[in-house]
Amino acid sequence: MSAPVAPTLLPFTVDDYAARIARAGAAAADAGLAGLLVAPGPDLTWLTGYRPIAVLERLTLLVLTPDGPPTLIVPTLERPDAQAAPGAGAVTFRDWTDGTDPYEVAGSLLHPDGRYGISDSTWAMHLLGLQRVRPGTAYVSLTDGLPMLRGVKDGAELDRLAAAGAAADAAYAEILKVRFAGRRETDVAADLAGLLRRFGHEQVDFTVVGSGPNGANPHHEAGERVIEPGDAVVLDFGGLLAGYGSDTTRTVTVGEPGDPEVRTVHGIVREAQQAAFEAVRPGVPAQQVDRVARRVITEAGYGEFFIHRTGHGIGVTTHEPPYVVEGEVSPLVPGMCFSIEPGIYLPGRFGVRIEDIVTVTADGGRRFNNTSHDLGLVS
Amino acid sequence: MSAPVAPTLLPFTVDDYAARIARAGAAAADAGLAGLLVAPGPDLTWLTGYRPIAVLERLTLLVLTPDGPPTLIVPTLERPDAQAAPGAGAVTFRDWTDGTDPYEVAGSLLHPDGRYGISDSTWAMHLLGLQRVRPGTAYVSLTDGLPMLRGVKDGAELDRLAAAGAAADAAYAEILKVRFAGRRETDVAADLAGLLRRFGHEQVDFTVVGSGPNGANPHHEAGERVIEPGDAVVLDFGGLLAGYGSDTTRTVTVGEPGDPEVRTVHGIVREAQQAAFEAVRPGVPAQQVDRVARRVITEAGYGEFFIHRTGHGIGVTTHEPPYVVEGEVSPLVPGMCFSIEPGIYLPGRFGVRIEDIVTVTADGGRRFNNTSHDLGLVS
Repeated sequence: MSAPVAPTLLPFTVDDYAARIARAGAAAADAGLAGLLVAPGPDLTWLTGYRPIAVLERLTLLVLTPDGPPTLIVPTLERPDAQAAPGAGAVTFRDWTDGTDPYEVAGSLLHPDGRYGISDSTWAMHLLGLQRVRPGTAYVSLTDGLPMLRGVKDGAELDRLAAAGAAADAAYAEILKVRFAGRRETDVAADLAGLLRRFGHEQVDFTVVGSGPNGANPHHEAGERVIEPGDAVVLDFGGLLAGYGSDTTRTVTVGEPGDPEVRTVHGIVREAQQAAFEAVRPGVPAQQVDRVARRVITEAGYGEFFIHRTGHGIGVTTHEPPYVVEGEVSPLVPGMCFSIEPGIYLPGRFGVRIEDIVTVTADGGRRFNNTSHDLGLVS
Repeated sequence: MSAPVAPTLLPFTVDDYAARIARAGAAAADAGLAGLLVAPGPDLTWLTGYRPIAVLERLTLLVLTPDGPPTLIVPTLERPDAQAAPGAGAVTFRDWTDGTDPYEVAGSLLHPDGRYGISDSTWAMHLLGLQRVRPGTAYVSLTDGLPMLRGVKDGAELDRLAAAGAAADAAYAEILKVRFAGRRETDVAADLAGLLRRFGHEQVDFTVVGSGPNGANPHHEAGERVIEPGDAVVLDFGGLLAGYGSDTTRTVTVGEPGDPEVRTVHGIVREAQQAAFEAVRPGVPAQQVDRVARRVITEAGYGEFFIHRTGHGIGVTTHEPPYVVEGEVSPLVPGMCFSIEPGIYLPGRFGVRIEDIVTVTADGGRRFNNTSHDLGLVS
């Protein structure tokens, strides 16, 4: 078998986190916001590296404003854990003890009538506490106010996404060697999960195995269906490696495809994926990449069977902005990373999808998945 | 070894969920609320049995108002999963598709100037959406507005808590047989986790092994310390069985205690735990149970070393109201379930804690943990 992928990734430095915090502050100012309020979740992970073991009722909140240093408010009991986070050196700490009002601490850092961006998954209980102590403030969710906050990856993040992609590619190379015919989809899914872990993933998020007619449902995961000779099988898998996401799809057949249209459809999807990839360059609106993929499939007569957007961003989560979809007019910027994953789904028969993670470079795009786009052959 | 605990628990019925929804609606009206808004989390699990696999950005919200049927708003894609929940028959469904405004759907069920209770962990993004479409509405978190919403358990819930307690007791009986001396705390913690699972837990939440001086820190979990002959060891463990929590603590010694004060302290903690248990009956304020335990320890001269509250509620989570703490004046009601867990912590030396889950009965209390309160002896 291939040698395990063993990326030597340097830890993020305090400077990495400080730079992200500075970028976030600048983006907030550009968006006309008085500051950003970030509770535990992917935004806080990205800005500070701090991931509390359990998110409970006690307020933890990063407050970024132009008026003072970046300040992480934490319960006193959890302060040692927070101070051990890799980005702790980039923030000032304020702790609060049970019996005191954490919202007063946070409110003291806010303008009485400021408009703030607040991370999407902040608990409603905390937002109500802020609104109580500072009734003149206004709030907008980060997805609405700063959708591209984490959209542009820095060099250390790109290294991780590349390593995650290489590990997923190694898993694909290995899965081609296992037996498909006569086994259940869930068996192959378990193999894929094991391979992702073997090649360095600390978390497996999805292992789609859509065989035969199940492949025609893009929401199918893996079921009890026994895979048969001649099936087309959609394999879509990924997770997190060193905190960053992988997500790749290839379509394979068990011996010669039973349905002669599989090869035709696969060729069209492959052409659409390549055309969309070639459309990637700085300044192009994200929706243009979707349009290019869709045009190829529509002109081939299968437009009605491409029933989802072309892609989604990836970083510390496996689904995030930028979305590659009609209506997303944000221009592509070097360092953005997203999937390109056109597909054609023929109900009751089969599906085909090909997906790579792509990053925007100075003059085009670069793939983080590099396994063959040929129709895979399994036994 | 003891026979595995194999509880034969009947599934909750639609009537169980309908009764909880009716109780919640009545409690909201008593609290002067126009209704309740419940996003995925323990409150939604309790009211409907619905636990989405992943809580994402799409709105899922149970709306309970006196004006119409209980209504569960779900994304169209997730409607089949929601309708498969055991309490689905107790609610009406409203689904919404990508591209439409889910907050308009929710807002259409609300009074323009109503005051609503909203589950604590509802995403801020969703609360902002509701505030946008119904700017005259007001909100209070369920912890603030209806802290005892899930406080009184019904018969089917009590069966589960009793089964979880019995399983934890079985795990304790077995752990007394394993070797402690010369092994690390983390080794014994792994044994405890395995035993909880063997006796029916589907989830292990904590396995505290605090040996020697580590036992004097009530926040210690389990570390690399090698357990020594003569050590006192605090064992505090629990998780979920059939969706309901266990949580019990016993203190053991490795042979004869090295510190002669261990036996004295243990006797005082045991007396405090028993006195607090005997104080449990309907109508007594929760804080009274704390006071009774604290008085025993204070009168014995160790008051400054009892550094936490006496207990916490338990149900679909392992920490919830009612809290057994000074200031909690809510009267105990039959069916409430909580821990009684006094402790004494002598810094740098050892700790002792004894914890049982207790439910309030018509005329007193009943323990769900029934292993001996003697100082346990291990080798």
